[in-house]
Amino acid sequence: MTNSSSPTYYADYLRLSQLLACQQPLSGDGHKPAHDEMLFIIVHQAYELWFKLCLFELDSVLETFGQDSVDEKQVGIAVSRLQRIIEIQNLLIEQLRVLETMTALDFLDFRDVLYPASGFQSFQFRLLENKLGMLPDQRLLYNREVYYSHLAPDHQRLIQQSEKGPSLFALVERWLERTPFVDFHGFDFWRVYRQAVEDMLAVDRKAILANTHSSQTEKESQLREVDTNQENFEAILNEDKHRSLIDRGLRRLSHRATKAALLIELYRDEPILHMPFQLLTALMDIDEQFNAWRYRHALMVQRMIGNKIGTGGSTGYSYLRATIDKYKIFADLFNLSTFLIPRSRLPELPEEVKKNLGFYYSRRDS
Amino acid sequence: MTNSSSPTYYADYLRLSQLLACQQPLSGDGHKPAHDEMLFIIVHQAYELWFKLCLFELDSVLETFGQDSVDEKQVGIAVSRLQRIIEIQNLLIEQLRVLETMTALDFLDFRDVLYPASGFQSFQFRLLENKLGMLPDQRLLYNREVYYSHLAPDHQRLIQQSEKGPSLFALVERWLERTPFVDFHGFDFWRVYRQAVEDMLAVDRKAILANTHSSQTEKESQLREVDTNQENFEAILNEDKHRSLIDRGLRRLSHRATKAALLIELYRDEPILHMPFQLLTALMDIDEQFNAWRYRHALMVQRMIGNKIGTGGSTGYSYLRATIDKYKIFADLFNLSTFLIPRSRLPELPEEVKKNLGFYYSRRDS
Amino acid sequence: MTNSSSPTYYADYLRLSQLLACQQPLSGDGHKPAHDEMLFIIVHQAYELWFKLCLFELDSVLETFGQDSVDEKQVGIAVSRLQRIIEIQNLLIEQLRVLETMTALDFLDFRDVLYPASGFQSFQFRLLENKLGMLPDQRLLYNREVYYSHLAPDHQRLIQQSEKGPSLFALVERWLERTPFVDFHGFDFWRVYRQAVEDMLAVDRKAILANTHSSQTEKESQLREVDTNQENFEAILNEDKHRSLIDRGLRRLSHRATKAALLIELYRDEPILHMPFQLLTALMDIDEQFNAWRYRHALMVQRMIGNKIGTGGSTGYSYLRATIDKYKIFADLFNLSTFLIPRSRLPELPEEVKKNLGFYYSRRDS
Amino acid sequence: MTNSSSPTYYADYLRLSQLLACQQPLSGDGHKPAHDEMLFIIVHQAYELWFKLCLFELDSVLETFGQDSVDEKQVGIAVSRLQRIIEIQNLLIEQLRVLETMTALDFLDFRDVLYPASGFQSFQFRLLENKLGMLPDQRLLYNREVYYSHLAPDHQRLIQQSEKGPSLFALVERWLERTPFVDFHGFDFWRVYRQAVEDMLAVDRKAILANTHSSQTEKESQLREVDTNQENFEAILNEDKHRSLIDRGLRRLSHRATKAALLIELYRDEPILHMPFQLLTALMDIDEQFNAWRYRHALMVQRMIGNKIGTGGSTGYSYLRATIDKYKIFADLFNLSTFLIPRSRLPELPEEVKKNLGFYYSRRDS
Repeated sequence: MTNSSSPTYYADYLRLSQLLACQQPLSGDGHKPAHDEMLFIIVHQAYELWFKLCLFELDSVLETFGQDSVDEKQVGIAVSRLQRIIEIQNLLIEQLRVLETMTALDFLDFRDVLYPASGFQSFQFRLLENKLGMLPDQRLLYNREVYYSHLAPDHQRLIQQSEKGPSLFALVERWLERTPFVDFHGFDFWRVYRQAVEDMLAVDRKAILANTHSSQTEKESQLREVDTNQENFEAILNEDKHRSLIDRGLRRLSHRATKAALLIELYRDEPILHMPFQLLTALMDIDEQFNAWRYRHALMVQRMIGNKIGTGGSTGYSYLRATIDKYKIFADLFNLSTFLIPRSRLPELPEEVKKNLGFYYSRRDS
Repeated sequence: MTNSSSPTYYADYLRLSQLLACQQPLSGDGHKPAHDEMLFIIVHQAYELWFKLCLFELDSVLETFGQDSVDEKQVGIAVSRLQRIIEIQNLLIEQLRVLETMTALDFLDFRDVLYPASGFQSFQFRLLENKLGMLPDQRLLYNREVYYSHLAPDHQRLIQQSEKGPSLFALVERWLERTPFVDFHGFDFWRVYRQAVEDMLAVDRKAILANTHSSQTEKESQLREVDTNQENFEAILNEDKHRSLIDRGLRRLSHRATKAALLIELYRDEPILHMPFQLLTALMDIDEQFNAWRYRHALMVQRMIGNKIGTGGSTGYSYLRATIDKYKIFADLFNLSTFLIPRSRLPELPEEVKKNLGFYYSRRDS
Repeated sequence: MTNSSSPTYYADYLRLSQLLACQQPLSGDGHKPAHDEMLFIIVHQAYELWFKLCLFELDSVLETFGQDSVDEKQVGIAVSRLQRIIEIQNLLIEQLRVLETMTALDFLDFRDVLYPASGFQSFQFRLLENKLGMLPDQRLLYNREVYYSHLAPDHQRLIQQSEKGPSLFALVERWLERTPFVDFHGFDFWRVYRQAVEDMLAVDRKAILANTHSSQTEKESQLREVDTNQENFEAILNEDKHRSLIDRGLRRLSHRATKAALLIELYRDEPILHMPFQLLTALMDIDEQFNAWRYRHALMVQRMIGNKIGTGGSTGYSYLRATIDKYKIFADLFNLSTFLIPRSRLPELPEEVKKNLGFYYSRRDS
Repeated sequence: MTNSSSPTYYADYLRLSQLLACQQPLSGDGHKPAHDEMLFIIVHQAYELWFKLCLFELDSVLETFGQDSVDEKQVGIAVSRLQRIIEIQNLLIEQLRVLETMTALDFLDFRDVLYPASGFQSFQFRLLENKLGMLPDQRLLYNREVYYSHLAPDHQRLIQQSEKGPSLFALVERWLERTPFVDFHGFDFWRVYRQAVEDMLAVDRKAILANTHSSQTEKESQLREVDTNQENFEAILNEDKHRSLIDRGLRRLSHRATKAALLIELYRDEPILHMPFQLLTALMDIDEQFNAWRYRHALMVQRMIGNKIGTGGSTGYSYLRATIDKYKIFADLFNLSTFLIPRSRLPELPEEVKKNLGFYYSRRDS
């Protein structure tokens, strides 16, 4: 509570005189600016502050997973930082409600002065996407040019650099591949899993055929569904199938990492997998939150400018709308649900493996 | 605070003994049911309670606008009821967070017993969509059949009825067409508006050509944007153009109603237009909220079942995903922003018209 | 969409290079600072950005109500700006969730360097409180000194100035006093209102006595409640009673303004009162939101520092806790509910008055 | 996905015909009821559905901690169920916004018919409070009688039973007391901790005296703060001191359990303490959320009825307001922050202990 150096003053600590001098409306030509331009500036500055914090947290997580060996203590800290990013994303979405208090007509009062600036020029947001693992190939052309073409040279350099650096996707993939969960000594999980899947599908088929409530057409349709499910399971059981899905751009995560992730999902109640499970969940949440934000943002833009061209020259709403699904990074984790089987059919792990998945510290002697 | 009849008891008033007896899990075959089935049931029942309230509020608004003459007092009440629906929709979206505490693996524990039930069978939600104004043509086939084919006969009847009854869209359209805002006696607003648009576009073109910072190619591209904007404006100025857009399914709201709505947007600061403006805003909010809900719901389903077939037989995520944009009802209101012009270019209304748009009751003599 | 001057660049427009240079952690003594200090700084800077925007919106509302005559158009705009403040307050509350991702132990890593800075030193927040109408007398001593004693001289000056300037409370009070709603020509509303209140209480008493379900003791207790309600009504009907409540510090709003506010509440469905009603509602919302924020903030502080002394030297939680109810500004508006009577007992306004409260523009001729 | 029994129908599964028949407004005397009574009923029914779910989740957690030995797998599941309760509480708070769309005047239209029913009669909410660990002594008298006096006999019985059964507070206290974290074999943590505290306070005192920026009076005031902090630490270090605090009603959690909880807070980054730490956090969150709900609810009641007596005969706002702080259950956990010391001063755990706190399963051999 004490400090031998000079006392800290709140306004100095937060650099308030600089911070509160950064709001310089352009409208009004020296006269009274359009009232809502202040809102517009501050909302966007708040976004950039939060982006900076997200990048700061993300960088520390990248550092953790960039190490050759990551201990569980660090995984726990990384998870809590990802969860912080998720809370910030919540705020980014809520913040749109403040922006939406500006109506389309209010925006028109100063829209001209922004030209050709646009939220697309937020280099911090691009860095965030790239560091999470967005691939250059995934990106839509923006105004018929590469997405960072309208940025200042130093910002372009930062973005190009981030495209090269190892992303969270790549580092987590490597971490998953190295986890010891995939191969259990002396216990072929995947053979047992395959059997469980086949049993489950056989019971499904039998139930369909035995159902006296459904017509022949219904039965056939239901059997086809079971066939589809069977095919889906092949993708996890068969590495070649998985590789061909990767080749066709339908999967991105390696087969080995996918299997590790599935094991985490299936045995997530085991203490040692608590944190890995929270990690995978956090990655999906981050993806989902950014897409929710993109979606809400696209809606707002449509309401604000209708069919007009965006200030940055994009086709506004339709451009934004198109990015939503395409820009998902951890889609493979979402798809893991395809491979889940009910707990009741889950192969019982051998005692030895279970012990390895639990804590050493036993409560017995307490 | 007093009541001559028998005293009211909280639990009786709310029918708690019936209400709390409605949660009957199916899993477990008489043994201990899957833990999360209780969550699943209660979340869906809460949804249905809110849907009932939304329908109740919407019906009262339909009654208001179904009258031959709607006075401003009633418009105010209708708006506050629509705003209540919007608050409920907020809750519907938030409620997904509770459902999301159930993981895919937890769901698998009882998913089988639901077959073939599905949220698609919520007849109250279908009624809500139809009463708002969703057209049967807009709907996707569900499992290759009409969307209500899997419902009980009495629920099908209710839905078919709601398809026929006048919807909020239709009633508001009629109300807009009858508003006195479109034709001002002795003041041709639309001639002045056209002139303002042309002036604005001319200034835009001139500015582009005079800009010394941009290349010839950039100028050409910018001029093409102005052309596009000009074409967009034609749709409001020219009834034939509007009709052809309707014929091609690109517009739904009549030309006359669209013009009235635009006038409300442009002169919304006039006291008499406060409530009409809040009405249009509320309609867009309702649309936006339901689409936000559909979007979040689709994401959750993907996370829950991956590529599997939904319990109702739909292709789950991709079906839900497809409904989002297609199911917008008041899209024409969103597009009004296309026709806005800056306040500074807005034609000044003649004194007589302005007086008519203000309140009779003057503060002068107070 | 075009602009003859030099093109705007997003990062320059938002002054990003300055803005993103304002985060200077103090911990670490030149070495790696405590990880969570960045979070701490950015959260507080975001608060200050929002406070600036709230002040900006509030100032424009003060300007409106500072005029001698305020027309309805301006009231509408003022209401929408107050509603914007409410949305921002929502965000201020949500933002605590981000701060709460920092645990008490994380905070300890850099708490020392803050000494003696403290959130109490936010001069913008003090300005906001004063401009809304907080009275110097309402304030608790902070660390046994006046609340702004620890601020820099220029910030102290700003705060002292804001204590003198007309507050929103004062301006709205004056505006209410001048509204024409209190005296209707040739219709003594308050005589009719008094009669309605007396009739209502008489019916209450009769019902209590006639109730065969309740014991004598219960009846006596209920009759005492009716007496209390009667006394409460005296405060609005009798100016002397009201003045004595003001003298004892139990009321602040003048009798005339209180009566105008009550009339607005009672006849809020009349079109001309839509906006005044939304204004009163917004004032209560702003009060409620700041108190909700103070409450959540106090809880967070307790969790963060327990019984320790705050960095600013305050007794932390207990100080904050004490401010919550004491710092309500528009308490008199909340209390208006005491004076409401059911719509069914509301005196019918004479035709002439009703016409004055409606819009001149009739739909008849449309 | 298939089921040999009869197909499930959504509306039947959810018992919709019963559920949607539970809304029976009392106002209107057989004529058209007050419009907003439907809202009032449905909001309260939604509350009761969520209370049922909270009780269901809480009961399963009580079952877990009621066992003689609780393994980590079960702690993880319990935590996720408590986190579900927290999400539901979020919704309970949000739900107030829907109720707040009803104004005081709308409420008056049907308030009479509720008499003397009141939300105080929600037996489920009382059960929830008791099962969490609220003590009968903590409770305020309600209308001069015990809090459940106005309930039906069977509801009274349930509440009395819940007062006797082991609460979450009691079970977690027992679990904490039995954790092996308090005594480490051959390592006297508490001696080292005491030393660390004393060193820290000595440095603080030295820094204060050496500070050239502060006056003598300031120094004295700061030294007194350090004395206060020192006294606070005594409460954890000295069991007698703790016991006397318990006797004076200032503490509730046993000394042993408090020490275990503090250790969990201090070493929460150790993998084995991840879940215990999340457990303690969840308990505080639940407390905080219910208090936030009580606070928001009290504000709403004040706005709705002003100074009037509540329908249940309570003094409305002031009663509710008084419950907020008094009804905190896990206050001792909030106060743990008092005893935290910076990580840099935290005694390093011996290698042996650290290994015991880590996972057995090493990544080395992967």
